[in-house]
Amino acid sequence: MMRLGVLASGSGSNLQAILDACAQKAIPAEVAVVVCNVAGAKALQRAESAGVPAVLLAHGQFPTRDAYDAELVALLRRHQVDLVCLAGFMRLITPVLLSAFQNKVLNIHPSLLPAYPGLHAARKALQAGARVSGCTVHIVDEGTDTGPIVVQAAVPVLDGDTEETLAARILAQEHRCYPRAIALFAQGRVELDGRRVRLRAPQGDPARTLSSPELFD
Amino acid sequence: MMRLGVLASGSGSNLQAILDACAQKAIPAEVAVVVCNVAGAKALQRAESAGVPAVLLAHGQFPTRDAYDAELVALLRRHQVDLVCLAGFMRLITPVLLSAFQNKVLNIHPSLLPAYPGLHAARKALQAGARVSGCTVHIVDEGTDTGPIVVQAAVPVLDGDTEETLAARILAQEHRCYPRAIALFAQGRVELDGRRVRLRAPQGDPARTLSSPELFD
Repeated sequence: MMRLGVLASGSGSNLQAILDACAQKAIPAEVAVVVCNVAGAKALQRAESAGVPAVLLAHGQFPTRDAYDAELVALLRRHQVDLVCLAGFMRLITPVLLSAFQNKVLNIHPSLLPAYPGLHAARKALQAGARVSGCTVHIVDEGTDTGPIVVQAAVPVLDGDTEETLAARILAQEHRCYPRAIALFAQGRVELDGRRVRLRAPQGDPARTLSSPELFD
Repeated sequence: MMRLGVLASGSGSNLQAILDACAQKAIPAEVAVVVCNVAGAKALQRAESAGVPAVLLAHGQFPTRDAYDAELVALLRRHQVDLVCLAGFMRLITPVLLSAFQNKVLNIHPSLLPAYPGLHAARKALQAGARVSGCTVHIVDEGTDTGPIVVQAAVPVLDGDTEETLAARILAQEHRCYPRAIALFAQGRVELDGRRVRLRAPQGDPARTLSSPELFD
């Protein structure tokens, strides 16, 4: 059973999707600890409701980002975390965390990367006049949304869309993609070939399977 | 019935998809003329087989790109073309053509633009480790693959993919997207809002319809 550390700052809807997938045994993983850097964030309540240790690690207490991340690493290790999942964690992480969990830190981003990295991805897709956008779960590297891609899902951009309606449509797919990406790690199917992810075939099934027509991994 | 001028340089498989859609009355359009700049291109044979005027306009005969495009415009006008469709036309076009057919020149590109413009789009998607790519029909402007997007389709990138297998999977969607985009023009549904395409609702059906789960317009 793979042990997850989920880092969140806000409402934590992706955290909830992960908690639900674990509780339903849909994926061979469990959330070992939830860490939040914002007091009162709904993510903390979600963790508590699910009976998962919830830790508030406020950044004001630490002189530097490195010091914060060193404490974060110690905390994740104490909870024997195998895989770190950023789920709306609104804070830049440092090589201190990345080197402690090498290629084991995931992030989710609301676009089909490498399109529209950074903030306001849904707005950027609308401004580009795109008819398709989506979301991406990727391994975190030193760049901004540049790491190896694990899972992507595509969604249509509709004519009447605002940033909010498009972001909501993408978010629904995020909730499917993140558990799927975690399952691929928990099943030992993810391997890196340079900067590309290759998936090992699932055990007992040599054929590569797509989990759904819209979700691509 | 909208009259199309299709410009091709190579095998013309997108031309064939357009010819087939017209012949099957799947779209309210007809190919008025096919223009090719390469002698012996299969596109010319396809036009002849379909009973459509096929014109070889070799660029060697013209001193400048502008002179070539002026002749092209004259030719398209003689055939009373309403909409110009670039279908693997391996030649840069000039403002001479674009101003004569303002917002009426379409192109198809093998990626989800604005991702991977220019040559070798499938190779670029593989190099990026993308799990999703696709194709785009767009209105041509002065830039390279920068014009307003009309239709896009998404396809998965599979682990074993080479540039050739991915390009072939994308090409199959191109053959669906191009007729779809032409139909939207022929039905008078395409309007421009700045640099974004907005689609008018189809007549008699106020609800916006997606033509399929994978094809987004």
